Amino acid sequence: MRIVVVGGVAGGMSAAARLRRLDETAEIVVLERGPDVSFANCGLPYHVGGEIRNRSALLLHTPASLHASLDLDVRVRHEVTSIDRDARTVTVRDLEAGTDAVLGYDALVLATGAEPIVPPLPGLDRPEVRTLRTVPDADALRDLLDAGAQSAVVVGAGFIGLETVEAFRHRGLTVTLVELAPQVLPALDADMASMIEAELRAHDVDVRTGAGLAAVEDSRSGRAVDVVLSDGERIGADVVLLGVGVRPSTALARAAGLELSPAGAVVVTPSQQTSDPHIWAVGDAIQVTDFVTGAPGVVPLAGPANRQGRLAADAIMGRHVASSPVLGTAIVRVFGLTAAVTGPTSRRLTAAGVEHRVVHLHPGHHAGYYPGAESIHLAVIFAPDGGLLGAQAVGSAGVDKRIDVLATALRAGMTVDDLAELELAYAPPFGSAKDAINMAGFLAQNVLDGMLTTWSAAELDSVLDGSVLLLDVRSAREFAVGHLPGALNVPHTRLRGRIDEVVEAAAGRPVRALCASGFRSYLAHRVLTSHGLDSASLDGGLTTLLAARPDAPIVVDSVREPVLASR
Amino acid sequence: MRIVVVGGVAGGMSAAARLRRLDETAEIVVLERGPDVSFANCGLPYHVGGEIRNRSALLLHTPASLHASLDLDVRVRHEVTSIDRDARTVTVRDLEAGTDAVLGYDALVLATGAEPIVPPLPGLDRPEVRTLRTVPDADALRDLLDAGAQSAVVVGAGFIGLETVEAFRHRGLTVTLVELAPQVLPALDADMASMIEAELRAHDVDVRTGAGLAAVEDSRSGRAVDVVLSDGERIGADVVLLGVGVRPSTALARAAGLELSPAGAVVVTPSQQTSDPHIWAVGDAIQVTDFVTGAPGVVPLAGPANRQGRLAADAIMGRHVASSPVLGTAIVRVFGLTAAVTGPTSRRLTAAGVEHRVVHLHPGHHAGYYPGAESIHLAVIFAPDGGLLGAQAVGSAGVDKRIDVLATALRAGMTVDDLAELELAYAPPFGSAKDAINMAGFLAQNVLDGMLTTWSAAELDSVLDGSVLLLDVRSAREFAVGHLPGALNVPHTRLRGRIDEVVEAAAGRPVRALCASGFRSYLAHRVLTSHGLDSASLDGGLTTLLAARPDAPIVVDSVREPVLASR
Repeated sequence: MRIVVVGGVAGGMSAAARLRRLDETAEIVVLERGPDVSFANCGLPYHVGGEIRNRSALLLHTPASLHASLDLDVRVRHEVTSIDRDARTVTVRDLEAGTDAVLGYDALVLATGAEPIVPPLPGLDRPEVRTLRTVPDADALRDLLDAGAQSAVVVGAGFIGLETVEAFRHRGLTVTLVELAPQVLPALDADMASMIEAELRAHDVDVRTGAGLAAVEDSRSGRAVDVVLSDGERIGADVVLLGVGVRPSTALARAAGLELSPAGAVVVTPSQQTSDPHIWAVGDAIQVTDFVTGAPGVVPLAGPANRQGRLAADAIMGRHVASSPVLGTAIVRVFGLTAAVTGPTSRRLTAAGVEHRVVHLHPGHHAGYYPGAESIHLAVIFAPDGGLLGAQAVGSAGVDKRIDVLATALRAGMTVDDLAELELAYAPPFGSAKDAINMAGFLAQNVLDGMLTTWSAAELDSVLDGSVLLLDVRSAREFAVGHLPGALNVPHTRLRGRIDEVVEAAAGRPVRALCASGFRSYLAHRVLTSHGLDSASLDGGLTTLLAARPDAPIVVDSVREPVLASR
Repeated sequence: MRIVVVGGVAGGMSAAARLRRLDETAEIVVLERGPDVSFANCGLPYHVGGEIRNRSALLLHTPASLHASLDLDVRVRHEVTSIDRDARTVTVRDLEAGTDAVLGYDALVLATGAEPIVPPLPGLDRPEVRTLRTVPDADALRDLLDAGAQSAVVVGAGFIGLETVEAFRHRGLTVTLVELAPQVLPALDADMASMIEAELRAHDVDVRTGAGLAAVEDSRSGRAVDVVLSDGERIGADVVLLGVGVRPSTALARAAGLELSPAGAVVVTPSQQTSDPHIWAVGDAIQVTDFVTGAPGVVPLAGPANRQGRLAADAIMGRHVASSPVLGTAIVRVFGLTAAVTGPTSRRLTAAGVEHRVVHLHPGHHAGYYPGAESIHLAVIFAPDGGLLGAQAVGSAGVDKRIDVLATALRAGMTVDDLAELELAYAPPFGSAKDAINMAGFLAQNVLDGMLTTWSAAELDSVLDGSVLLLDVRSAREFAVGHLPGALNVPHTRLRGRIDEVVEAAAGRPVRALCASGFRSYLAHRVLTSHGLDSASLDGGLTTLLAARPDAPIVVDSVREPVLASR
């Protein structure tokens, strides 16, 4: 029995290794077009930036080590140019020798991955314009940096784009980040992503959202090239990184007549089988199902690719398997902050017509009384019946843990009630007796059972028009250093004693309470409703409001303290 | 309506705060015997050690702040001395004034907590012998240290004991740790806890397991006292910390005739109601149900206490609630290592007659190619049907995250198949494409479906008697620096070429393969079984074997490298 695997990185190599463990005698041939197999794709930006110093650290295996360990026949610089499905053969070109050969298979695994999108714009074929997908890509970028590049333009503020921005800054380049969308990191909702945008700006990155790339041209400014934006602006650069996304590499599958999705991804069964029963496919090249919405899509992530490879091997060996729908759990470090997500964004749920609620909170990553507690900015999305739909987190510590717990809860079909009851590990250096996750559950429960009515940044303009009483329940000192115009300041600890004043000020209008994070205004909301007032508490407080609306008008009575002292 | 809460720390204060949020008009009285409410019990060892410098950081609220924020009537140094259930009154002693008063209630919440066990042994009433449960306890310990204490004996190697050991070492004391059980940290299985014991020794802690306390007497060595062990040994000490556990503080409930468990804990319904329908109870004083075994028990942990307080408040206000069985998720930092657990240990499952399997593994806490990856020592316990039963982890980074994910998976009723499919956040600084949790799932799947047969440290003596072929598949260099006596060294990369040699050496005997962590011996196991050999792979490799059996005979052929270079 001969099994041929096309593509020797994440999904392909997982399939090959698992195949060997399942069957000691099968002939397993791995054909890889590039010069490397099993390389650390996700480590490339860190090698460019210098954190991973040795290039060799990226090369997890070689054909020789895979032969010794797993008796695999791994051939690099070998490209499969066609599949003859009837004959069950592939044509393989030896890219070094320039020769073609035909290789038969009993089972074929397509792990052809994805390729960076290069828009059809003028000048993108210049040598200073690079993508970052392979080790040679990283080599080329490092060569440009080592040759003295001083300024960079990164096009696309997704994961690769942001990691490369950090790498470039780490190497001392000035960096402009150009993103067509109105926000960075479109995998997150705008009010969470804006915290990452602020972090980029704090590290001197020139962030241009809502800006399109038009061309790369000869420079007028003495740099290697000029990046021309769609509004005509020119930005000089010595290196340009295109990080505008990837598309499935499925030319081979298409030519072989395998069923593809409208997006060009290979359609597979839950056992990773293509429309040809002798061909399986895995990884970035295939169509997957979204766990929450059930929508088909393409999710180019290493984790699912590796697991699909393992499942394909099991399926080929006759085992019953069923691959899982994909949550799209992802994480990125951006300077001192980390942003992570699991499940769809609120924006995507809205587009899909899925009814949902969102709560925002900013708990500490561990007990506040233990030194070093940092805020985690957390958004939890849930259905009207309490079922968890997704979550996002931004912060400097503990973000990965919370998103992993929420990804597990999401896959388990947990509700916000379950989040409230989760029993997580607590000692002062690690968490809180009521962990951030529990707090999110409590908060969502309160929203669902009517204990808490919230208002959000989306209502900002309408609450500023005088139709409501804005009631800021922070301390007088916090209020003085920055507040919304027209807000009445009654610290929550004084609210009961001053309730008549509030009722009078409301004069029949609804009361919209706010504080820094949403907790004190929740306490105030309970008091206000008990006095018969139409009340709502600002979800996530001013921290979330200012992240969602950095343009919000803020009145400053004092400059002694930053606007959110207790953030 | 008046609600009286007895005990103003975790569970009691959570109940009181939630009650106010549910009902603005109720009279809520909190009676606390001690001088502080809402203090950070779990932070006490860190204050003793100096990490939490300011005592005031431990005091999260005061009666005044709780009055201002939540309109609570909090009375410290007020002890409830009796309950008249028929009259629905409590008798309260003002410990400052020395006066008694009677206070009526419509609902009563008992959050009386637990008290440190002080065994009835001679000399434990000496001032140098302390427990650590309250802020005054921490004050007393700090006073002893500030007065020049140089040597300490800590009795009991549970969570408080270990945290206090670290605090004492942090303050420069010599420390002897005395534990009656044959291991430290009995909340973990012995083969995991022994890694913590090694860490203690590496930090110059004199660890005495299997050692009983007999008395504390006048010192013969010039220290403040001598701690006398049951074998007659005397250890001089300037301070002695008793950390041998706590028992529910239920004298009040007992005197009132409320139903107690044989262990003396208050028996409650899932809505936290005691045998008296007007009295609820929460926290360390109550009996809880173990999530996995269903057994009743007492779990004195802050997380469940806080959530029970919240639920009791809901129940009192007529909401339908059902508290959860308890997993016993817990974590402790011990110098550079962290140990954590969720669910019962293998030892406890065996005692309860619950059939189960355990796998051990040692994956990196993030991608190995990114600088700074540290091993996580992970034990995952599961049922024959794959259902997760518990987990333990020890390591220097990422331990809390993995145990929190496993605690979530355990509560969700997940199987090892689910662990294999979990989609966790991966970028090089945070995890791996196949996270430690996925790897645990793969490994357990392999054990259950017969891909992998394991042997363990429990079989060490029988595999050393010549009845099996011990096959060490590590590299020749690793083998030379330390191996089991009589083992044949065939590196796994050479196994296929040398299989005839192995068959001959086996001479019909079973083969017991081993490596450092269990992965290479798994690969070898697949090769060996394909050649018809009776094979098994050492679970967790030599790393787990040496943790379980530090006394294992090791033959050293070379002293150039530590015994487990690739550990």
